[in-house]
Amino acid sequence: MISQTTEYALRAVVWLAANPEKPLTAQQIAEATRVPAGYLAKVLQGLSRAGLLHSQRGLGGGFTLARSPNSLTMWEVVQAVDPLKRIHECPLGFEAHGADLCPLHRQLDDAIAGIEKAFTNCKISKLIDTSDGSSPLCAYHPKGTTGRGAKRAKR
Amino acid sequence: MISQTTEYALRAVVWLAANPEKPLTAQQIAEATRVPAGYLAKVLQGLSRAGLLHSQRGLGGGFTLARSPNSLTMWEVVQAVDPLKRIHECPLGFEAHGADLCPLHRQLDDAIAGIEKAFTNCKISKLIDTSDGSSPLCAYHPKGTTGRGAKRAKR
Repeated sequence: MISQTTEYALRAVVWLAANPEKPLTAQQIAEATRVPAGYLAKVLQGLSRAGLLHSQRGLGGGFTLARSPNSLTMWEVVQAVDPLKRIHECPLGFEAHGADLCPLHRQLDDAIAGIEKAFTNCKISKLIDTSDGSSPLCAYHPKGTTGRGAKRAKR
Repeated sequence: MISQTTEYALRAVVWLAANPEKPLTAQQIAEATRVPAGYLAKVLQGLSRAGLLHSQRGLGGGFTLARSPNSLTMWEVVQAVDPLKRIHECPLGFEAHGADLCPLHRQLDDAIAGIEKAFTNCKISKLIDTSDGSSPLCAYHPKGTTGRGAKRAKR
């Protein structure tokens, strides 16, 4: 339902949100999120192009979130990398039909609308909120990471 | 979100449910549902293998629904051709983590669970119910079809 690319993008965004102290390299993010490095590099490029990440070259460089986790939503991340498309008109191409979908496509669009609503209401900050004892991305603790996720993992 | 294959399978199932009088050939279903014939042939094979369609060779042969539209659900069709997978354990593979998903994967699984619930509650009969004035698959009217969809289109 959610593509592999989107799922990897969400992992990367969540990890960057949880570890905002300094830029993280693609390799560090790949290790933490357990995504193949080559695949993740393309995902990070896509997120950068969409304006969701800043990338900084050179020593000490890497990726940081370009948006506050308090304002960035899951839906925005999904739509930036592999958009879910609402069904606005008959996919069979019947022009007379217009915006009045048949029952099948109404059901399908309702399902996508439900996802849109849930993900629009879910800020990235919620995904790194540990007040209920949970940890972003399972409290993975990569070497050399000093972010919040790492601290939690050390407990 | 719903794959092309799944969407085509749903179109075929809805069309067969709306036109139960006699077997329909792959070509007839392809025309009615506006799906490329080669693609649809594979989709119909998948639905037959999953036990959702009967296929009958020879003159007068074709496909019919193997299940009553009153008992078959959208979810069963989706799961027969291109299953949506619930997230039962950490996709990052942290064993200690078990079934306690992190907030990201909890959100993603909740989204899939929502689709599962909606589609499980939606029988195929609901998708051909015309009591509210709608028509299955936009009242398409293929030549030679005498089913309910065709009758509606003639009005």
